[in-house]
Amino acid sequence: MEVFPKVLVLGPPTCYETLQHIYSHKFNFINPNSSDLSLHQFIISNHPPSIRAILCSASFTLTADFLRLFPSLGLVVTTSAGTDHIDLNECRRRQINVAGAGGLLSEDVADKAVALLIDTMRKISAADRYVRTRNHGGEWDFPLGYKLSGKRVGIVGLGSIGMEVAKRLESFGCIILYHSRHQRSSVSYPFYSSIVDLATNSNALVICCALNEQTKHIINSEVLLALGKEGFIVNVGRGGLIDENQLVKCLIEGEIGGAGLDVFENEPHVPQELLALDNVVLSPHCAAFTSESVMSLCELVGGNLESFFSNMPIITPLMLD
Amino acid sequence: MEVFPKVLVLGPPTCYETLQHIYSHKFNFINPNSSDLSLHQFIISNHPPSIRAILCSASFTLTADFLRLFPSLGLVVTTSAGTDHIDLNECRRRQINVAGAGGLLSEDVADKAVALLIDTMRKISAADRYVRTRNHGGEWDFPLGYKLSGKRVGIVGLGSIGMEVAKRLESFGCIILYHSRHQRSSVSYPFYSSIVDLATNSNALVICCALNEQTKHIINSEVLLALGKEGFIVNVGRGGLIDENQLVKCLIEGEIGGAGLDVFENEPHVPQELLALDNVVLSPHCAAFTSESVMSLCELVGGNLESFFSNMPIITPLMLD
Repeated sequence: MEVFPKVLVLGPPTCYETLQHIYSHKFNFINPNSSDLSLHQFIISNHPPSIRAILCSASFTLTADFLRLFPSLGLVVTTSAGTDHIDLNECRRRQINVAGAGGLLSEDVADKAVALLIDTMRKISAADRYVRTRNHGGEWDFPLGYKLSGKRVGIVGLGSIGMEVAKRLESFGCIILYHSRHQRSSVSYPFYSSIVDLATNSNALVICCALNEQTKHIINSEVLLALGKEGFIVNVGRGGLIDENQLVKCLIEGEIGGAGLDVFENEPHVPQELLALDNVVLSPHCAAFTSESVMSLCELVGGNLESFFSNMPIITPLMLD
Repeated sequence: MEVFPKVLVLGPPTCYETLQHIYSHKFNFINPNSSDLSLHQFIISNHPPSIRAILCSASFTLTADFLRLFPSLGLVVTTSAGTDHIDLNECRRRQINVAGAGGLLSEDVADKAVALLIDTMRKISAADRYVRTRNHGGEWDFPLGYKLSGKRVGIVGLGSIGMEVAKRLESFGCIILYHSRHQRSSVSYPFYSSIVDLATNSNALVICCALNEQTKHIINSEVLLALGKEGFIVNVGRGGLIDENQLVKCLIEGEIGGAGLDVFENEPHVPQELLALDNVVLSPHCAAFTSESVMSLCELVGGNLESFFSNMPIITPLMLD
């Protein structure tokens, strides 16, 4: 009987079911969620030195301690664009390859970001709730939203997602500004090295940078107050990019105009106060996922695993330098 | 005491309150809604031959019979882009000027159309509902939406709104097709003279044409079935453009994928069956209205009234030939 290489599945990722269906004749996926054992017991019972690859989603945190359980580990494949859940220093030290989703998810994430921005400014979900709950036959009297055209939108993180967001918003007649680690020579959008200055000069902020030690709580109360009472914020990055307590406070006190949030600091927990607000749009961390992107992601994950186990260069390596 | 020219207000339009505030020193707005009299009694008591201008919204129907009550009528100003609520034949016959909103509302309506399309395809409002009602702390398991990039979107009515919709959707990587009264020589999008053919070749339809005798129920069951089970439809035109009974039937039976509707056949009535569906996004006929557009509209309406009462050409005349 042929022995397929083991792949430990942690999370599990949204695309796992499809992936299993396509690749179970090539890899031996071992999934602790399908077992009654504790995670630790499950791993011990599966002979950790034989595990050379891990497949994970953003919801599973790979600490250095956890990675040390696997002395032969050579590859971590994550189905997310972000890699803040992986201890990259440890991977670098041990020369473990890390494969991300690359730019595969950028379009879908950007579409969601733009949708959340229009939704909060034009009150789309709030209008839907209004019609569904007040369909009593009386005249409609729904509050006005804000016009999108002509608004100044500050993008925080002008990577592949940020660029897709900018391209889309330009077609709506928005003016694009940005903050990034470095000014980008290839774009003409005004660059702000200070995020408070960016917020002061923007009608809306779209957060799509990576979460790391430098960017944690990059959106704090000072930034939110600079954005102001008629300012809107969208987050499709990671919950930890925003100081959530301060955001909730500003929303409740009317210090900012509204928020569209795909991510939260302690998922799947969403602050209870947000559930009652009409000027927020909430989403269960699904900006990257459509039927189409999940299929593409399966192919990419499968390709990375095949390359690795054939001793070929992986397709979407994260540069760990 | 100076006597201001009378303007009969019917509807009243969304911008009426602001308009009254700005222009009450120039015009004598008479509003039947502020009176206990019936509409007919109110008009009789206001000496109809002295009324030369009517200001109305899309929600008030100006029939030929109604217009005949005002022998000196010279101007109808509507705050809507559509004019299907005005008997244009009667206006033409009597040489009554008609002033619409012109292209003033096109951007806001187009923004809303694009928002409704992304919302239905990516399940934005449904996700918001999911988070608000199931925030029990368990893992999220929200169904996947459809990717927008690369989809073929058929626009029905390539006027100023349709062109703005096309421009926006191109930035999302959509492929634009269209149906219109006539093929437009200035655009390269593929033209379909048959709306069934357009639907067959589209993943989504965006309806933004005018409602008239030729376009009533232009979207019937044949078109909807051609659009198909994974097809989406957005309507920011008028409710009567779609055979609503057939649309409801197709949505319930899963014959189309979903719908984003700003307009309905018998507003403010919304078919009860739609309220329970997760694949529709409902909106109380407000695609054209933002704080900004209402201000601009006030200025335009005021300008049209001032021009008319100064015997100058009005600013946004509807061509009645």
